Amino acid sequence: MISQLIEKIKKTNAPICVGLDPMLSYVPEHVVKKSLDAYGETLEGAADAIWQFNKEIIDHTFDLIPAVKPQIAMYEQFGIEGLTVYKKTVDYCHEKGLIVIGDAKRGDIGSTSAAYAAGHLGRVQVGSKSLSGFNVDILTVNPYLGTDGVKPFVDVCRSEDKGLFVLVKTSNPSSGEFQDRLIDGKPLYEWVAAKVEEWGAGCMDGEYSNVGAVVGATYPEMSEILRKLMPHTYFLVPGYGAQGGTAADLKHCFNQDGLGAVVNSSRGIIAAYKQEKYKNFGPEHFGEASRQAVIDMVADISSVL
Amino acid sequence: MISQLIEKIKKTNAPICVGLDPMLSYVPEHVVKKSLDAYGETLEGAADAIWQFNKEIIDHTFDLIPAVKPQIAMYEQFGIEGLTVYKKTVDYCHEKGLIVIGDAKRGDIGSTSAAYAAGHLGRVQVGSKSLSGFNVDILTVNPYLGTDGVKPFVDVCRSEDKGLFVLVKTSNPSSGEFQDRLIDGKPLYEWVAAKVEEWGAGCMDGEYSNVGAVVGATYPEMSEILRKLMPHTYFLVPGYGAQGGTAADLKHCFNQDGLGAVVNSSRGIIAAYKQEKYKNFGPEHFGEASRQAVIDMVADISSVL
Repeated sequence: MISQLIEKIKKTNAPICVGLDPMLSYVPEHVVKKSLDAYGETLEGAADAIWQFNKEIIDHTFDLIPAVKPQIAMYEQFGIEGLTVYKKTVDYCHEKGLIVIGDAKRGDIGSTSAAYAAGHLGRVQVGSKSLSGFNVDILTVNPYLGTDGVKPFVDVCRSEDKGLFVLVKTSNPSSGEFQDRLIDGKPLYEWVAAKVEEWGAGCMDGEYSNVGAVVGATYPEMSEILRKLMPHTYFLVPGYGAQGGTAADLKHCFNQDGLGAVVNSSRGIIAAYKQEKYKNFGPEHFGEASRQAVIDMVADISSVL
Repeated sequence: MISQLIEKIKKTNAPICVGLDPMLSYVPEHVVKKSLDAYGETLEGAADAIWQFNKEIIDHTFDLIPAVKPQIAMYEQFGIEGLTVYKKTVDYCHEKGLIVIGDAKRGDIGSTSAAYAAGHLGRVQVGSKSLSGFNVDILTVNPYLGTDGVKPFVDVCRSEDKGLFVLVKTSNPSSGEFQDRLIDGKPLYEWVAAKVEEWGAGCMDGEYSNVGAVVGATYPEMSEILRKLMPHTYFLVPGYGAQGGTAADLKHCFNQDGLGAVVNSSRGIIAAYKQEKYKNFGPEHFGEASRQAVIDMVADISSVL
């Protein structure tokens, strides 16, 4: 899977993914109104507004980017109706040739992780049929439970050619509370990083493994160390733009050849029309504003590589 | 919320919850056959089998127990159809007067955790309406991202009188890989425990706070220490039975008054009819086998309190 992501990154010249993390407040009023008029002030109405919003953004950006990263929480907040739109979004992105990174941060004890892995990345057996639930290409995973919580995901990556991004160092302000604490002189996130390399060793797909790492853009000094500690690990880098990370901050996530990382931007792209910079597009043309924001983001990141 | 759980525990004399974590392989053949005959070898068919299985177990145990703990992964594996049955199970348990602990182990950066909290415990605003997605009473939460990843859940607990169980020390074999590592002389799980008490301080509901902790039954020496470190924290104790924890092991999770913990059993109860001990019930009477297993579990735990 990681080799497919790399191929698409090379083809688009865009080491980025668009975070499809729609809040209802990001969706232009005219879109929300139309959906609520059709379905009422219901979860179905809200989910339809999210879907219309996503579709417009995908249609305006899919040819420029290798991948999208829908954040499942933004869909789960609308219950079953929201998750139905998550699934619809995943399928539509696949139709458009995009790699889909499901940002779900799942993780549990072995048998439970196996169920998550089957539902999101793999398949479940029902009688004589082997069926898929959400069918994303890559999933984000939480490592707090250790190897036996992560291994079932790695197993599915191996059997189905899928990928993972394991949380190593997150981009939020209090990420240091546990992740930065020193254990035998090294921060916890470095111990997790070592495990990620280990988990990936049996799961190589070219020069990189199918087990990647989440490394926040907001801590550049750490990403420099982590890049060296995890030579076979692709990075998913959140925190660019709205969360405060700049292009200069994330330079160290990349290798000399410009590979090794995919940078996510969510709000900065999908709610671009709300920014001063893209205001002239107007809410009616929010998809075009997102397209311009993608072009600008790619140029910004390319300038430091 | 925690005061409601305690009240129900006192009323039933059963400090336990039944883990509704159905694997398709736990469901008796005649139940699976009926569902697949009706809906085909589809996700819908599998989900229906799970639902019929759950309903029978709930009907045979609800009067003996205070709470259930559906593990959402077991439903997520069947995609939207599975999650629809998760929601149906939550609602049916509420009808039966049970407290529902959604075992989802969610956790992300602030704004994303807020969406999870809204979807699982709270409400989302859609136009003039305030709507709930899954509406469980208590949710399990992963602390790896630190305070700003947990705070949105705590906020919803405060505003909606709901509860959390934050992962402190899990019951799986490799839980020690990160959780037991020493930081300034203390294992990571003790640092997390201290935060749990801190997060709960603003969220008290009687003698305990609405922010509880997951403390695995498989490590009795640790639960003794954690019980002292978290005097205001209720424990959710997984690992009893099938995972190897015995009643003697979990004694220290409780206070002198027999309160302070709720012990979960999943496979041991819901797949009881498969055990040698309950084989005489036969697959046709799997609900009755589960009922007997609940009675036996309560007696076993009561014997050490």
